[in-house]
Amino acid sequence: MPIEEKDLKTILDDISYLIAARQEASVKAMLLSLRSEDIAQLINHLKNKEERLYVFKLLDTESASEVIMELDEVVREQLVDHLGMRELAELVDEMDSDDAADFVSELDEEVVDEVLENVEEEDREEVRQLLEHEEDTAGGIMALEIIAVNQSWTVDQVIQEIRRKADEVDDVYNVYVVDDDGKLVGFVTVKDLIIASGDTIVKTIMDRDVLSVPVTMDQEQVANFAKKYDLVSVPVVDADNRLLGRITIDDIVDVMVEEATEDIQKMAGLSDDEDVRQTSVFRIVRGRLPWLITGLMGGIFAAFVMASYENSLRLEMTLLFFVPVVLGMGGNVGIQSSAIVVRGLATGEISGKDIFRRLLKEMKVSLMNGLILGLVIFTVVSFGFRESSLKVGFLISSALMTVMLMAGIVGSTVPLILKKMNIDPALATGPFITTSNDIIGLYIYLAMATFFLKTL
Amino acid sequence: MPIEEKDLKTILDDISYLIAARQEASVKAMLLSLRSEDIAQLINHLKNKEERLYVFKLLDTESASEVIMELDEVVREQLVDHLGMRELAELVDEMDSDDAADFVSELDEEVVDEVLENVEEEDREEVRQLLEHEEDTAGGIMALEIIAVNQSWTVDQVIQEIRRKADEVDDVYNVYVVDDDGKLVGFVTVKDLIIASGDTIVKTIMDRDVLSVPVTMDQEQVANFAKKYDLVSVPVVDADNRLLGRITIDDIVDVMVEEATEDIQKMAGLSDDEDVRQTSVFRIVRGRLPWLITGLMGGIFAAFVMASYENSLRLEMTLLFFVPVVLGMGGNVGIQSSAIVVRGLATGEISGKDIFRRLLKEMKVSLMNGLILGLVIFTVVSFGFRESSLKVGFLISSALMTVMLMAGIVGSTVPLILKKMNIDPALATGPFITTSNDIIGLYIYLAMATFFLKTL
Repeated sequence: MPIEEKDLKTILDDISYLIAARQEASVKAMLLSLRSEDIAQLINHLKNKEERLYVFKLLDTESASEVIMELDEVVREQLVDHLGMRELAELVDEMDSDDAADFVSELDEEVVDEVLENVEEEDREEVRQLLEHEEDTAGGIMALEIIAVNQSWTVDQVIQEIRRKADEVDDVYNVYVVDDDGKLVGFVTVKDLIIASGDTIVKTIMDRDVLSVPVTMDQEQVANFAKKYDLVSVPVVDADNRLLGRITIDDIVDVMVEEATEDIQKMAGLSDDEDVRQTSVFRIVRGRLPWLITGLMGGIFAAFVMASYENSLRLEMTLLFFVPVVLGMGGNVGIQSSAIVVRGLATGEISGKDIFRRLLKEMKVSLMNGLILGLVIFTVVSFGFRESSLKVGFLISSALMTVMLMAGIVGSTVPLILKKMNIDPALATGPFITTSNDIIGLYIYLAMATFFLKTL
Repeated sequence: MPIEEKDLKTILDDISYLIAARQEASVKAMLLSLRSEDIAQLINHLKNKEERLYVFKLLDTESASEVIMELDEVVREQLVDHLGMRELAELVDEMDSDDAADFVSELDEEVVDEVLENVEEEDREEVRQLLEHEEDTAGGIMALEIIAVNQSWTVDQVIQEIRRKADEVDDVYNVYVVDDDGKLVGFVTVKDLIIASGDTIVKTIMDRDVLSVPVTMDQEQVANFAKKYDLVSVPVVDADNRLLGRITIDDIVDVMVEEATEDIQKMAGLSDDEDVRQTSVFRIVRGRLPWLITGLMGGIFAAFVMASYENSLRLEMTLLFFVPVVLGMGGNVGIQSSAIVVRGLATGEISGKDIFRRLLKEMKVSLMNGLILGLVIFTVVSFGFRESSLKVGFLISSALMTVMLMAGIVGSTVPLILKKMNIDPALATGPFITTSNDIIGLYIYLAMATFFLKTL
């Protein structure tokens, strides 16, 4: 049975107690009744490294190889540091090729060669082959375990092949069909095989309209591709359409969650690899500080700008009191306009070509919002705020509208421009752009203020 | 072949040209060569409602029923408004039960009954049954098309059943095994069936450790469950463990993307149903305005607060120039602390129990960041900013640190508290909390300022 959230604490307490009492047999019995995902969850939540290592070392190699890939990266690193070359190699031997490659790529460079030397030759070759591909591409996430058959085979031969590979290939949804050159020409589902009679030639029942991705395709695009066409596994081909491997849906799901998390973290000004379970305060600070420093520099610069206008501002302090709200609203509009574009680009719903249509729409939206909010602030400043005059109300509301319009323009176009330049568009919602926006907004505000105060 | 991004514009131009020239046969031929997902993408991108309707009406009912569910919601609504009761009913007849229920639930309430009357009785009953469940639960996204067999059957009988249901059930990955009361007792994969001999009793080869979800489980939890255990389809059971339906991975992927989008939109102050392809500026404005109004009210309130301190502030204008940066940094820290918690809660990596551990960690991080930034701003204000004094530098830097610490505390605990109260934690990153933070931060800043100016 899976562990339920509410039982987690009790189970953790039990395990801690058993560990303290060195009840090895009881802990082992407990672990045997659990799935690898749940064991990983328990280890993630254990109090300290000692408990984690104790539990991990009780697992047989097969479970251990599954559990270690399910652990949070921080916890995995912790355990790996305490395992010997031979133990690491044994784990790699047990893993599917994609997991093995991921695992090895996380190891310190110095130990990689030593670990691989201890790995069986076939697995070693597979890992080396997979490590050639960029981490964030189809090649970087594909597995080599695959059932591929020649188009001239019969259904019975295919079934024999499935039996032969049953241990090696876990999830068999589709069987890929290749020609004599190894080029992908079609696929059959396992359901098709069950329905067909044994002597049918695969070529006659296969679906020729097989969807595949090139080995160099970016993993986010692969995920969107699989999502669009509802694929449970995606075959990966080289430039000559030769079948290289496949990506299964569970890895695609992981990519989607990872990419969404990265975008959210970038939006929030977190480094894209801050792990929820990161325990080193120093490492968290190091990841967050650059964004904060950017904001601070922008804010200090803004203070200097305001100070340089001090004489005009002293005459009309109201202007100064409304600086935060005008800049803040610019920030809000900028985030609204950019977040929708950034997310649309990530899910593939918006493409680089949509720039003018998008710009036009966001300008209309910002203008309409600006008019409404402008009217509100005009009323407040002109009639509700101390001795304030219509003039100041008019000034602040026009500045607000201008800043909002500009924020809408910048917010909607910058992500699309970044995308065209092959830079991650999510950066547009981060502190760098928002800080620049603040400063531009402030200049607009103060320039308008000086102009108005002089002329009206 | 799938449509590639770069060819989309050419294809769209071709179609528009053919539509204008009323070349019905050519458009039809073009559509026949495309997948439903690509047809939907084309229709989404067509210039106007007329073109969309023209293309849609050329599809046969089966394609139309697939295409319409792949369309963006805004576009789907547009088409549905122009279809008659009978046409709508025909589409529903063709759909899988889960799509049919989703489709019907989007229709205007007045027409639902009329449409359902035109639907075949069996399908109508299925839709009515599915509509009973809350939209965002396992029951709301499950399909009733499922292959379930009695545990006493032989493998040959099961294969007969798969053949019988081959048309109705598209993706067969697992066959669910039930006892005489319809209770879920295990599952076999299609691979298992291929490997076993025909006279084997299912009970002897089935995996008894079957993972299922209750019909009332929230869809986000279902998605996290499927992700955790790498499931391609999740059986849904009632309180007595009777098998009701299944959720396939493609729907789970949709849920994940939808939930991530919702969180990002809430963080950015967008209403959670703003569609990327929403064309009505008025509807976009209506969705965004409430968040902006909240921010505006907070900002106006802040202006009043500052105005009430005007006399103290006139004596030391520097304090006023640094208000935006101090509040801004509070906002940045608040977003950092809350975004990581909100995302962790969404992916299930953080649970409500982690509140104190999280709080402690975020306090340490905010303190360390605060000390570093405090030192920077102290140096700038004391030595670099006009005639400013150490006293003002000390004041501003301590206020900055206090506001950052507070923002870290609020940011990390509010999402966890909201979660405990069964309110969506993503609201914690939205404008309401950030605006409250601003005002609290301002009070802290001004209170400290008044105190310091009086005493030092």
